[in-house]
Amino acid sequence: MPKIYLEDLAVGDTWECGGRTVTREEIVAFAREFDPQSFHVDEEAARHSLYGGIIASGWHTAAICMRMIVDGLTSQVVSLGSPGVDAIRWPAPVRPGDTLRVRAVCLEVRPSRSKPGRGLARFRYEVHNQDGALVMTMEGMALVARRPEAAQA
Amino acid sequence: MPKIYLEDLAVGDTWECGGRTVTREEIVAFAREFDPQSFHVDEEAARHSLYGGIIASGWHTAAICMRMIVDGLTSQVVSLGSPGVDAIRWPAPVRPGDTLRVRAVCLEVRPSRSKPGRGLARFRYEVHNQDGALVMTMEGMALVARRPEAAQA
Repeated sequence: MPKIYLEDLAVGDTWECGGRTVTREEIVAFAREFDPQSFHVDEEAARHSLYGGIIASGWHTAAICMRMIVDGLTSQVVSLGSPGVDAIRWPAPVRPGDTLRVRAVCLEVRPSRSKPGRGLARFRYEVHNQDGALVMTMEGMALVARRPEAAQA
Repeated sequence: MPKIYLEDLAVGDTWECGGRTVTREEIVAFAREFDPQSFHVDEEAARHSLYGGIIASGWHTAAICMRMIVDGLTSQVVSLGSPGVDAIRWPAPVRPGDTLRVRAVCLEVRPSRSKPGRGLARFRYEVHNQDGALVMTMEGMALVARRPEAAQA
Protein backbone atom coordinates (compact mmCIF):
# COMPACT_ATOMS: atom_id res chain seq x y z
CA MET A 1 0.00 0.00 0.00
CA PRO A 2 1.52 3.40 -0.97
CA LYS A 3 2.27 5.56 2.04
CA ILE A 4 0.59 8.94 2.43
CA TYR A 5 2.98 11.87 2.93
CA LEU A 6 2.11 15.48 3.75
CA GLU A 7 2.06 16.32 0.01
CA ASP A 8 -0.62 13.67 -0.56
CA LEU A 9 -3.09 15.30 1.84
CA ALA A 10 -5.52 18.01 0.70
CA VAL A 11 -8.15 20.04 2.54
CA GLY A 12 -11.49 18.28 2.18
CA ASP A 13 -10.07 14.76 1.82
CA THR A 14 -12.45 12.43 3.68
CA TRP A 15 -12.14 8.94 5.14
CA GLU A 16 -14.86 6.71 6.58
CA CYS A 17 -13.58 4.17 9.09
CA GLY A 18 -14.75 1.80 11.74
CA GLY A 19 -17.86 -0.18 12.42
CA ARG A 20 -16.88 -1.32 15.90
CA THR A 21 -19.46 -2.58 18.39
CA VAL A 22 -18.86 -1.70 22.03
CA THR A 23 -19.86 -4.27 24.64
CA ARG A 24 -21.06 -3.70 28.20
CA GLU A 25 -18.05 -5.67 29.45
CA GLU A 26 -15.60 -3.41 27.59
CA ILE A 27 -17.36 -0.26 28.84
CA VAL A 28 -17.22 -1.39 32.47
CA ALA A 29 -13.65 -2.72 32.23
CA PHE A 30 -12.29 0.50 30.72
CA ALA A 31 -14.16 2.65 33.23
CA ARG A 32 -13.06 0.54 36.23
CA GLU A 33 -9.48 1.22 35.21
CA PHE A 34 -9.65 4.84 34.06
CA ASP A 35 -12.98 6.53 34.88
CA PRO A 36 -14.83 4.76 37.72
CA GLN A 37 -17.78 7.18 37.97
CA SER A 38 -20.97 5.35 38.97
CA PHE A 39 -22.80 5.86 35.65
CA HIS A 40 -19.92 4.06 33.86
CA VAL A 41 -19.46 1.10 36.21
CA ASP A 42 -22.56 0.53 38.36
CA GLU A 43 -25.70 -0.67 36.53
CA GLU A 44 -28.05 0.16 39.41
CA ALA A 45 -26.63 3.65 40.03
CA ALA A 46 -26.57 4.32 36.27
CA ARG A 47 -30.27 3.43 35.97
CA HIS A 48 -31.12 6.19 38.47
CA SER A 49 -28.72 8.70 36.90
CA LEU A 50 -29.30 11.35 34.25
CA TYR A 51 -28.43 8.70 31.65
CA GLY A 52 -30.89 5.92 32.61
CA GLY A 53 -28.26 3.20 32.21
CA ILE A 54 -24.58 2.54 31.84
CA ILE A 55 -22.76 4.75 29.33
CA ALA A 56 -19.18 4.61 28.08
CA SER A 57 -16.56 6.95 29.49
CA GLY A 58 -15.92 9.71 26.96
CA TRP A 59 -12.25 8.69 27.13
CA HIS A 60 -13.23 5.17 26.10
CA THR A 61 -15.16 6.58 23.12
CA ALA A 62 -12.11 8.68 22.25
CA ALA A 63 -9.80 5.65 22.50
CA ILE A 64 -12.11 3.54 20.31
CA CYS A 65 -12.28 6.43 17.84
CA MET A 66 -8.47 6.55 17.80
CA ARG A 67 -8.27 2.83 17.03
CA MET A 68 -10.67 3.23 14.11
CA ILE A 69 -8.64 6.21 12.85
CA VAL A 70 -5.34 4.30 13.17
CA ASP A 71 -6.75 1.32 11.25
CA GLY A 72 -8.45 3.38 8.55
CA LEU A 73 -6.15 6.37 8.11
CA THR A 74 -3.08 6.80 10.34
CA SER A 75 -1.63 3.39 9.42
CA GLN A 76 -1.39 4.61 5.80
CA VAL A 77 0.15 7.97 6.74
CA VAL A 78 3.83 8.53 7.55
CA SER A 79 2.78 9.79 10.97
CA LEU A 80 5.20 11.22 13.53
CA GLY A 81 2.71 11.59 16.39
CA SER A 82 0.43 14.39 17.50
CA PRO A 83 0.97 17.60 19.46
CA GLY A 84 -2.67 17.72 20.56
CA VAL A 85 -6.41 17.58 20.06
CA ASP A 86 -9.01 20.36 20.31
CA ALA A 87 -12.72 20.68 20.96
CA ILE A 88 -13.69 17.17 22.03
CA ARG A 89 -17.48 17.04 22.47
CA TRP A 90 -19.73 14.15 23.50
CA PRO A 91 -23.20 15.30 22.36
CA ALA A 92 -24.88 11.93 23.04
CA PRO A 93 -23.93 8.94 25.18
CA VAL A 94 -22.43 5.67 23.91
CA ARG A 95 -24.35 2.69 25.31
CA PRO A 96 -23.63 -1.06 25.41
CA GLY A 97 -24.17 -2.64 21.98
CA ASP A 98 -23.66 0.60 20.03
CA THR A 99 -21.71 0.28 16.78
CA LEU A 100 -19.49 3.27 16.08
CA ARG A 101 -18.13 4.67 12.84
CA VAL A 102 -15.88 7.67 12.34
CA ARG A 103 -15.58 10.18 9.50
CA ALA A 104 -12.29 12.06 9.18
CA VAL A 105 -12.08 15.25 7.12
CA CYS A 106 -8.80 17.05 6.45
CA LEU A 107 -9.08 20.71 7.53
CA GLU A 108 -5.57 22.05 7.01
CA VAL A 109 -2.15 21.01 5.66
CA ARG A 110 0.88 23.09 6.54
CA PRO A 111 4.63 22.39 6.08
CA SER A 112 6.73 23.18 9.14
CA ARG A 113 8.70 26.43 8.96
CA SER A 114 11.45 25.22 11.26
CA LYS A 115 11.62 21.46 10.49
CA PRO A 116 12.02 20.79 6.75
CA GLY A 117 11.14 17.09 6.89
CA ARG A 118 7.65 17.40 8.27
CA GLY A 119 4.42 19.34 8.52
CA LEU A 120 1.16 19.57 10.37
CA ALA A 121 -2.22 18.28 9.22
CA ARG A 122 -5.48 19.01 11.04
CA PHE A 123 -8.49 16.71 10.83
CA ARG A 124 -12.06 16.96 12.05
CA TYR A 125 -13.45 13.65 13.34
CA GLU A 126 -17.14 12.82 13.72
CA VAL A 127 -18.26 9.60 15.43
CA HIS A 128 -21.79 8.33 14.79
CA ASN A 129 -23.62 5.33 16.22
CA GLN A 130 -25.75 2.78 14.32
CA ASP A 131 -28.80 5.10 14.48
CA GLY A 132 -26.91 8.00 12.94
CA ALA A 133 -26.67 9.89 16.23
CA LEU A 134 -23.52 11.98 16.62
CA VAL A 135 -21.75 10.75 19.78
CA MET A 136 -18.35 12.48 19.52
CA THR A 137 -16.57 15.19 17.56
CA MET A 138 -13.01 16.48 17.84
CA GLU A 139 -10.25 18.20 15.89
CA GLY A 140 -6.90 16.42 15.91
CA MET A 141 -3.46 17.52 14.79
CA ALA A 142 -0.98 15.14 13.19
CA LEU A 143 2.73 15.56 12.50
CA VAL A 144 3.24 14.06 9.03
CA ALA A 145 6.51 13.43 7.16
CA ARG A 146 7.12 15.23 3.86
CA ARG A 147 8.23 13.28 0.80
CA PRO A 148 12.05 13.07 0.91
CA GLU A 149 12.38 15.02 -2.36
CA ALA A 150 10.04 17.79 -1.08
CA ALA A 151 11.89 18.03 2.23
CA GLN A 152 15.21 18.53 0.38
CA ALA A 153 13.88 21.14 -2.06
CA MET B 1 -16.71 12.95 53.25
CA PRO B 2 -18.90 16.00 52.46
CA LYS B 3 -19.91 16.16 48.80
CA ILE B 4 -18.88 19.15 46.67
CA TYR B 5 -21.76 20.89 44.88
CA LEU B 6 -21.54 23.68 42.30
CA GLU B 7 -21.86 26.30 45.08
CA ASP B 8 -18.76 24.87 46.78
CA LEU B 9 -16.50 25.48 43.77
CA ALA B 10 -14.69 28.79 43.23
CA VAL B 11 -12.40 30.07 40.50
CA GLY B 12 -8.82 29.40 41.53
CA ASP B 13 -9.56 26.35 43.69
CA THR B 14 -6.69 23.91 43.16
CA TRP B 15 -6.25 20.17 43.69
CA GLU B 16 -3.09 18.07 43.44
CA CYS B 17 -3.74 14.41 42.64
CA GLY B 18 -2.02 11.29 41.51
CA GLY B 19 1.46 9.89 41.74
CA ARG B 20 0.90 6.97 39.39
CA THR B 21 3.79 5.14 37.77
CA VAL B 22 3.22 3.92 34.21
CA THR B 23 4.82 0.61 33.24
CA ARG B 24 6.07 -0.49 29.82
CA GLU B 25 3.55 -3.36 29.89
CA GLU B 26 0.64 -0.96 30.47
CA ILE B 27 1.83 1.38 27.72
CA VAL B 28 2.11 -1.43 25.17
CA ALA B 29 -1.17 -3.11 26.23
CA PHE B 30 -3.18 0.12 25.98
CA ALA B 31 -1.62 1.01 22.62
CA ARG B 32 -2.14 -2.50 21.18
CA GLU B 33 -5.83 -2.08 21.88
CA PHE B 34 -6.40 1.58 21.04
CA ASP B 35 -3.41 3.20 19.30
CA PRO B 36 -1.11 0.62 17.66
CA GLN B 37 1.32 3.07 16.06
CA SER B 38 4.85 1.64 15.96
CA PHE B 39 6.38 4.09 18.45
CA HIS B 40 3.81 2.95 21.06
CA VAL B 41 4.02 -0.84 20.59
CA ASP B 42 7.30 -1.81 18.87
CA GLU B 43 10.51 -1.30 20.87
CA GLU B 44 12.80 -1.62 17.85
CA ALA B 45 10.77 0.72 15.62
CA ALA B 46 10.39 3.18 18.51
CA ARG B 47 14.17 3.28 19.02
CA HIS B 48 14.62 4.48 15.43
CA SER B 49 11.72 6.95 15.62
CA LEU B 50 11.66 10.64 16.52
CA TYR B 51 11.17 9.57 20.16
CA GLY B 52 14.13 7.20 20.60
CA GLY B 53 12.06 4.63 22.48
CA ILE B 54 8.54 3.56 23.32
CA ILE B 55 6.23 6.36 24.47
CA ALA B 56 2.68 6.20 25.80
CA SER B 57 -0.26 6.97 23.53
CA GLY B 58 -1.55 10.44 24.33
CA TRP B 59 -4.95 8.82 24.89
CA HIS B 60 -3.36 6.58 27.52
CA THR B 61 -1.89 9.62 29.27
CA ALA B 62 -5.34 11.27 29.11
CA ALA B 63 -7.02 8.16 30.54
CA ILE B 64 -4.47 7.93 33.39
CA CYS B 65 -4.96 11.64 34.05
CA MET B 66 -8.73 11.06 34.20
CA ARG B 67 -8.27 8.28 36.77
CA MET B 68 -6.13 10.54 38.94
CA ILE B 69 -8.76 13.30 38.63
CA VAL B 70 -11.61 10.92 39.50
CA ASP B 71 -9.78 9.64 42.58
CA GLY B 72 -8.64 13.07 43.77
CA LEU B 73 -11.48 15.38 42.75
CA THR B 74 -14.46 14.03 40.77
CA SER B 75 -15.29 11.36 43.35
CA GLN B 76 -15.94 14.17 45.87
CA VAL B 77 -18.03 16.24 43.44
CA VAL B 78 -21.71 15.59 42.65
CA SER B 79 -20.74 15.12 39.01
CA LEU B 80 -23.24 14.56 36.20
CA GLY B 81 -20.72 13.89 33.43
CA SER B 82 -18.96 16.12 30.93
CA PRO B 83 -19.97 17.73 27.64
CA GLY B 84 -16.39 17.94 26.45
CA VAL B 85 -12.71 18.80 26.75
CA ASP B 86 -10.66 21.49 25.01
CA ALA B 87 -7.06 22.12 24.10
CA ILE B 88 -5.39 18.81 24.90
CA ARG B 89 -1.62 19.18 24.41
CA TRP B 90 1.17 16.66 24.87
CA PRO B 91 4.31 18.85 25.08
CA ALA B 92 6.63 16.00 26.12
CA PRO B 93 6.36 12.21 25.84
CA VAL B 94 5.44 9.83 28.68
CA ARG B 95 7.96 6.96 28.88
CA PRO B 96 7.97 3.64 30.75
CA GLY B 97 8.60 4.15 34.46
CA ASP B 98 7.39 7.75 34.53
CA THR B 99 5.37 8.78 37.59
CA LEU B 100 2.60 11.23 36.80
CA ARG B 101 0.83 13.80 38.93
CA VAL B 102 -1.97 16.17 37.95
CA ARG B 103 -2.88 19.64 39.13
CA ALA B 104 -6.47 20.78 38.61
CA VAL B 105 -7.41 24.47 38.78
CA CYS B 106 -11.00 25.69 38.61
CA LEU B 107 -11.34 28.29 35.80
CA GLU B 108 -15.08 29.01 35.75
CA VAL B 109 -18.29 28.17 37.64
CA ARG B 110 -21.62 28.92 35.97
CA PRO B 111 -25.18 27.84 36.92
CA SER B 112 -27.21 26.55 33.98
CA ARG B 113 -29.74 29.02 32.57
CA SER B 114 -32.12 26.29 31.35
CA LYS B 115 -31.64 23.51 33.93
CA PRO B 116 -32.10 24.78 37.52
CA GLY B 117 -30.52 21.74 39.22
CA ARG B 118 -27.09 21.96 37.70
CA GLY B 119 -24.28 24.08 36.34
CA LEU B 120 -21.02 23.93 34.48
CA ALA B 121 -17.52 24.08 35.93
CA ARG B 122 -14.38 24.39 33.85
CA PHE B 123 -11.00 23.14 35.03
CA ARG B 124 -7.47 23.37 33.69
CA TYR B 125 -5.42 20.22 34.18
CA GLU B 126 -1.62 20.01 34.09
CA VAL B 127 0.16 16.66 34.20
CA HIS B 128 3.83 16.56 35.21
CA ASN B 129 6.28 13.67 35.41
CA GLN B 130 8.74 12.89 38.23
CA ASP B 131 11.31 15.33 36.74
CA GLY B 132 8.83 18.20 36.70
CA ALA B 133 8.40 18.06 32.91
CA LEU B 134 4.94 19.04 31.70
CA VAL B 135 3.59 16.07 29.69
CA MET B 136 -0.07 17.01 29.20
CA THR B 137 -2.43 19.97 29.60
CA MET B 138 -6.15 20.24 28.89
CA GLU B 139 -9.29 22.15 29.84
CA GLY B 140 -12.23 20.01 30.88
CA MET B 141 -15.87 20.86 31.48
CA ALA B 142 -17.94 19.19 34.20
CA LEU B 143 -21.69 19.21 34.77
CA VAL B 144 -22.10 19.60 38.53
CA ALA B 145 -25.29 19.41 40.63
CA ARG B 146 -26.40 22.48 42.59
CA ARG B 147 -27.28 22.19 46.25
CA PRO B 148 -30.96 21.23 46.47
CA GLU B 149 -31.83 24.47 48.30
CA ALA B 150 -30.02 26.58 45.67
CA ALA B 151 -31.70 24.75 42.80
CA GLN B 152 -35.13 25.50 44.28
CA ALA B 153 -34.43 29.17 44.99
